[in-house]
Amino acid sequence: MVPLFAQQALWGGQDIVSPEIHSDNSVTFRVYAPEAQKIQVTGDFLPPREIDTQVGKTEGPGVADLLKGSNGVWEYKTAAPLSPELYSYSLIVDGVKTTDPNNVYMIRDVATVQNVFMIGGGRGDLYKTNKVPHGTVARRWYSSPTLKMERRLTVYTPPGYESGNKRYPVFYLLHGMGGDEEAWIALGRTAQIMDNLIAQGKASPMIVVMTNGNAVQEAAPGESSLNFYKPTFQLPKTMEGSMEQSFPDVVNFIDNSYRTVKSKQGRAIAGLSMGGFHSLHISKQYPDMFDYVGLFSAAIMPGKDVKSPVYSNMEEKLKVQFEKKPKLYWIGIGKTDFLYQANTDYRKMLDARNYKYVYYESEGGHIWRNWRIYLSEFAPLLFK
Amino acid sequence: MVPLFAQQALWGGQDIVSPEIHSDNSVTFRVYAPEAQKIQVTGDFLPPREIDTQVGKTEGPGVADLLKGSNGVWEYKTAAPLSPELYSYSLIVDGVKTTDPNNVYMIRDVATVQNVFMIGGGRGDLYKTNKVPHGTVARRWYSSPTLKMERRLTVYTPPGYESGNKRYPVFYLLHGMGGDEEAWIALGRTAQIMDNLIAQGKASPMIVVMTNGNAVQEAAPGESSLNFYKPTFQLPKTMEGSMEQSFPDVVNFIDNSYRTVKSKQGRAIAGLSMGGFHSLHISKQYPDMFDYVGLFSAAIMPGKDVKSPVYSNMEEKLKVQFEKKPKLYWIGIGKTDFLYQANTDYRKMLDARNYKYVYYESEGGHIWRNWRIYLSEFAPLLFK
Repeated sequence: MVPLFAQQALWGGQDIVSPEIHSDNSVTFRVYAPEAQKIQVTGDFLPPREIDTQVGKTEGPGVADLLKGSNGVWEYKTAAPLSPELYSYSLIVDGVKTTDPNNVYMIRDVATVQNVFMIGGGRGDLYKTNKVPHGTVARRWYSSPTLKMERRLTVYTPPGYESGNKRYPVFYLLHGMGGDEEAWIALGRTAQIMDNLIAQGKASPMIVVMTNGNAVQEAAPGESSLNFYKPTFQLPKTMEGSMEQSFPDVVNFIDNSYRTVKSKQGRAIAGLSMGGFHSLHISKQYPDMFDYVGLFSAAIMPGKDVKSPVYSNMEEKLKVQFEKKPKLYWIGIGKTDFLYQANTDYRKMLDARNYKYVYYESEGGHIWRNWRIYLSEFAPLLFK
Repeated sequence: MVPLFAQQALWGGQDIVSPEIHSDNSVTFRVYAPEAQKIQVTGDFLPPREIDTQVGKTEGPGVADLLKGSNGVWEYKTAAPLSPELYSYSLIVDGVKTTDPNNVYMIRDVATVQNVFMIGGGRGDLYKTNKVPHGTVARRWYSSPTLKMERRLTVYTPPGYESGNKRYPVFYLLHGMGGDEEAWIALGRTAQIMDNLIAQGKASPMIVVMTNGNAVQEAAPGESSLNFYKPTFQLPKTMEGSMEQSFPDVVNFIDNSYRTVKSKQGRAIAGLSMGGFHSLHISKQYPDMFDYVGLFSAAIMPGKDVKSPVYSNMEEKLKVQFEKKPKLYWIGIGKTDFLYQANTDYRKMLDARNYKYVYYESEGGHIWRNWRIYLSEFAPLLFK
């Protein structure tokens, strides 16, 4: 006879709360696992730890051991309260890194799914769904004549858009390598950040368009005619000009489908990492299209072997772009980002030519925590 | 020194395909777990098995053992090819039921998250994203004056809606107990089914509105101002009249926000289980609102102690509803559904009064497989 509790553990959920966020913002992780030998938790709330590999030392997310109680429930409580943030983590059950069976909140990042939890307060409150007016989030399909494909994108329309007649400016927000049109909504908490910034009067009401920057993809994994397959990090046709050359297809679709401000002063573009690279090149390739440009931890330079005309005559095109005086050219990077030096070099080049930009330097590296911060800093500067 | 492969297994993903769907539609599940003692897979693709519990025998999902290979990779291959269907499963790692680290496709059902995979062909092709015109799926918020809340719903608009001027009929599609406004899109594959039925000319283009039937909730778990919390199956205010009484708020919002056919012949309502109960009572409470009614595995009767005026004078209200001759009153139920007898009794009552309805009896029980089938059968009958 199997006791009911064990049955529930095997066939249904577990009657356990994990993670439990205590009133002081310390957090306890729990799992019922009477048969397991070892359970650990790993995530970005733990200090990173050094790992030996065949190719030398590297940094990986921290790992902490859960301790087994006599009731078969394993526990780990953080040593200290956590700062406000959206954190992600996984459990490691006898060596298998997987999700916490007691936490239904998960976000996919490229080919892995991790659990998430939030610590509110301070900037963390921007990432929460609050009792404020909410925009609409739509997944739509558009035709790209340039790529000869039907493609999917995500559109945030601000509170009041659907019930009114006003025209709105448009912010095009691009993901990084391995990402897709779901990345900014899921990992970036874009809808919550925009709802909250608009409700606080800090950001102008605007449409936010989150595209798919992988020119070979119709849509995010699981959402295209390929249906369910194992996603990979690196795809062909990402940084070879196709995305940039086909971008006017997106702008045309949005201008024809929404009540937009159809001019340079009504358009912003920003992206993270590869999306920063795309934003840099799209904005200089079409210098009359965007008055606001944001490079978030941008992958600045194309590979030397990339031959697209998009990347040729870069200095000349930048000269044209900056002579037209964009209202905002914004560069954000973390101090320990592997692209820090490339961004420093790029800024030196801009400085040497006296091209105006705004610079925002944060702690940390090439991580979503920073991209949520950059979005929260950048959006309030737009369309003012 | 940790080998790179193990490092990848611990900190990132695994370089393994699971599930692998073979050309004959048999399926192999795999996981790299050199330290685990026992790994099993459980899911609705396996025959159910009998379980002893403290309260007697019951039926649970089947379980199969994975076998460990010398390379640390565990495997299980189905004994036979699987029929076309969307299946869900979990791995059990040393007794902990969790998700497959090699499959990013997961669907939450109330308080648990399971992996999913699809076998195409036959009806299964309706559940796939195919190269056909795609509708738009929007998450929106509306005001319910009756419930005094801002609430979230999901709206599918058919291909061509946004670019045209035509008015469209509206199909209100309701979830079951524990579900929310995400259930039909995620578990029900509504967008795919509607895209495919419309592309095949089998269903009329229509708007599909998926509401939240839990009158205490603003929105699905994780999407409301409660943010991340552990969802529970049974909520207060689900089958006591509030949902039914506030439903005109939804219809008014949709009629004011979309180009709808604003009359009885342009409206359908259907729901599964608790949503079938809601559809029954809403359609009889407002007999001039819906010309098409679908009861999918409906929870037919209110509890005897429920005092809402919605449930009073039921026979009289049904008489009014059927005298107005709805174009379609559709009842679908599975042969082994625990609500089979209640549905049989209800049909007998309708028969005795000579109220016309269409009856669809399927194999199986109270499961999503049946609700996808009922949606696929019901939608083509609407607005013709």
